[in-house]
Amino acid sequence: VSAELATVTWLTGIVTDIESGPSPFSIPPLVVVEPGGAVVAVASEDEAAGAAGAVDVRTVTGFAVEDADRAGEATAVVLEALAGAREVACDLASLPGSLVAALLERDVGLIDVRPELQRARAVKDSDEIDAIRAAIVLSDAGQAAARAGLSAGRTELELWGAVRRAIEELAGERVPLLADFVTGARTAEVGGPPGGRRVSEVDLLLADLVPRRAGWWADSCATVAVGAVPGEVRAAHAAACAALERATEMLRPGVRAGDVDAAARELIAGAGGSYPHHTGHGLGTSYHEEPRIIPGSDRVLEPGMVIALEPGAYGDGWGVRVERVVLVTDAEPEVLSGHDIAL
Amino acid sequence: VSAELATVTWLTGIVTDIESGPSPFSIPPLVVVEPGGAVVAVASEDEAAGAAGAVDVRTVTGFAVEDADRAGEATAVVLEALAGAREVACDLASLPGSLVAALLERDVGLIDVRPELQRARAVKDSDEIDAIRAAIVLSDAGQAAARAGLSAGRTELELWGAVRRAIEELAGERVPLLADFVTGARTAEVGGPPGGRRVSEVDLLLADLVPRRAGWWADSCATVAVGAVPGEVRAAHAAACAALERATEMLRPGVRAGDVDAAARELIAGAGGSYPHHTGHGLGTSYHEEPRIIPGSDRVLEPGMVIALEPGAYGDGWGVRVERVVLVTDAEPEVLSGHDIAL
Repeated sequence: VSAELATVTWLTGIVTDIESGPSPFSIPPLVVVEPGGAVVAVASEDEAAGAAGAVDVRTVTGFAVEDADRAGEATAVVLEALAGAREVACDLASLPGSLVAALLERDVGLIDVRPELQRARAVKDSDEIDAIRAAIVLSDAGQAAARAGLSAGRTELELWGAVRRAIEELAGERVPLLADFVTGARTAEVGGPPGGRRVSEVDLLLADLVPRRAGWWADSCATVAVGAVPGEVRAAHAAACAALERATEMLRPGVRAGDVDAAARELIAGAGGSYPHHTGHGLGTSYHEEPRIIPGSDRVLEPGMVIALEPGAYGDGWGVRVERVVLVTDAEPEVLSGHDIAL
Repeated sequence: VSAELATVTWLTGIVTDIESGPSPFSIPPLVVVEPGGAVVAVASEDEAAGAAGAVDVRTVTGFAVEDADRAGEATAVVLEALAGAREVACDLASLPGSLVAALLERDVGLIDVRPELQRARAVKDSDEIDAIRAAIVLSDAGQAAARAGLSAGRTELELWGAVRRAIEELAGERVPLLADFVTGARTAEVGGPPGGRRVSEVDLLLADLVPRRAGWWADSCATVAVGAVPGEVRAAHAAACAALERATEMLRPGVRAGDVDAAARELIAGAGGSYPHHTGHGLGTSYHEEPRIIPGSDRVLEPGMVIALEPGAYGDGWGVRVERVVLVTDAEPEVLSGHDIAL
């Protein structure tokens, strides 16, 4: 049993609206996988239509004029689905406290398998890879719009509006969009949201665009210069691109994540730089998942893993980062991203 | 103890990013109110700075390169804050299952006070009313942009982009924005997100804009006509405005919510129409909360309640709705919304 949003989407196909936070007319959907492998979804009646064909969807009250105890309804439905179970494997932290209290009252043993579920999501099937490709089409379009629209005098928010418009026009709908979108000295801070600052004659835009399409996330970053930025910035950007190339090349089955991380950091350090964040991470129904590419990690890469690599370098008043998404295959690593990472 | 986002913001001032769903670098923040009234917040170190001065903030790992068990950390911090407690009042459904399991293992009694907490949020202090006013400035601006930008040939998404730009430019930052934003036949469906449809020569835009600013929500709806819409639509809109006026007039201390609902529905029914949703609802740190204005409700209005009223009427291929936010005072009801509701 899990109520982790990413796991629920992964197992059921149900995609929950996230842009305005928890809805008073809904519950976080839950998934129950029965011992035989049958998948039961417990969701608001308003979300049920999104489930994949093989999923047994059991609903609770959605939008309604009348008052309803949706959490209580969900607990009852899950208890029924689990009737007779003595032990249940679950993502314990994700479950509503009311459900856990009800299960423990019935002496059902709870075995936390959160790490196992997170690891299981790391290797993607071909339809999942297709879903990520479709999301990357949106991040590619957003990066192109950011590059095309960037010019001295525009505010970050103006440019941001153009980027989001480009993505939503292409998708034909609203698109959840996580982003770092900063210019000037804020690029040194690794990221942040767009604000009212105007692009100056000599400037940097750091745009990390992370859209969700049909429940699957893309990721991307480019750093774009306006005017003649200093040589040290150009050198750092070149090092980041070299680190990205090197790390991409290493994304092969059997390789340790920690070794990929070390190789990328070494190239940046060789150019006198560093970055205070991970080198990369998996993505799928969440935008940051296994396998994390971090120092010392023993995680071993497998075919079907989809990994966003994002080395960077940050100096005094400036920062650069480049990122693309790569698929681990049995043969050569396949770059899924199509956006321009030139400075 | 509560991990309900709206309750946490209400008690601590901590505002969580919501637009891209749950963050892998965070936990849903929790609030613990101690018997003496002291407020303890348990939150990611990245969110701690947002807390009000009097709040005792205890942090768990935020953004980090290293792996971390943030849910486990949060459980440990809450257990420490509750050390020695035999019974705890809580919003049970909101709590992470891992915390509830840990509390029950220690034989701590859990008393669910979810309804009481929701009722307590319904009456606003003056600083809370000011925060809602500041959010309404944004919905007013969005409504003005929608009205100004509406013309035949534009797509819903184009107009939507202009509305969001106007709101974000005014706020100087990204703004979470829940919305119904539909034209044409979809107005009959009460609402929905913007899509690729183009506005026709004779058309309706139903725009329900719900922005969040600094943790507090506004709400607003207007229906705007393009060209010569049919007389039945004009009559229904006039009835909706009359129902809004009448319901506004009734928002006084001691009045039953069900009576306000009945009065609004009666005016719409008198014009031959109806609406399949509530007449109104409170708003604050959530966009739909107590007091709900629904049929038969015995909820009694009190000064300090902030209520969005939204009667409408829906026919064959068309729908109209008007909404504004009203403050219940000891004297006359005060309309907080400033947007134009003309057809």
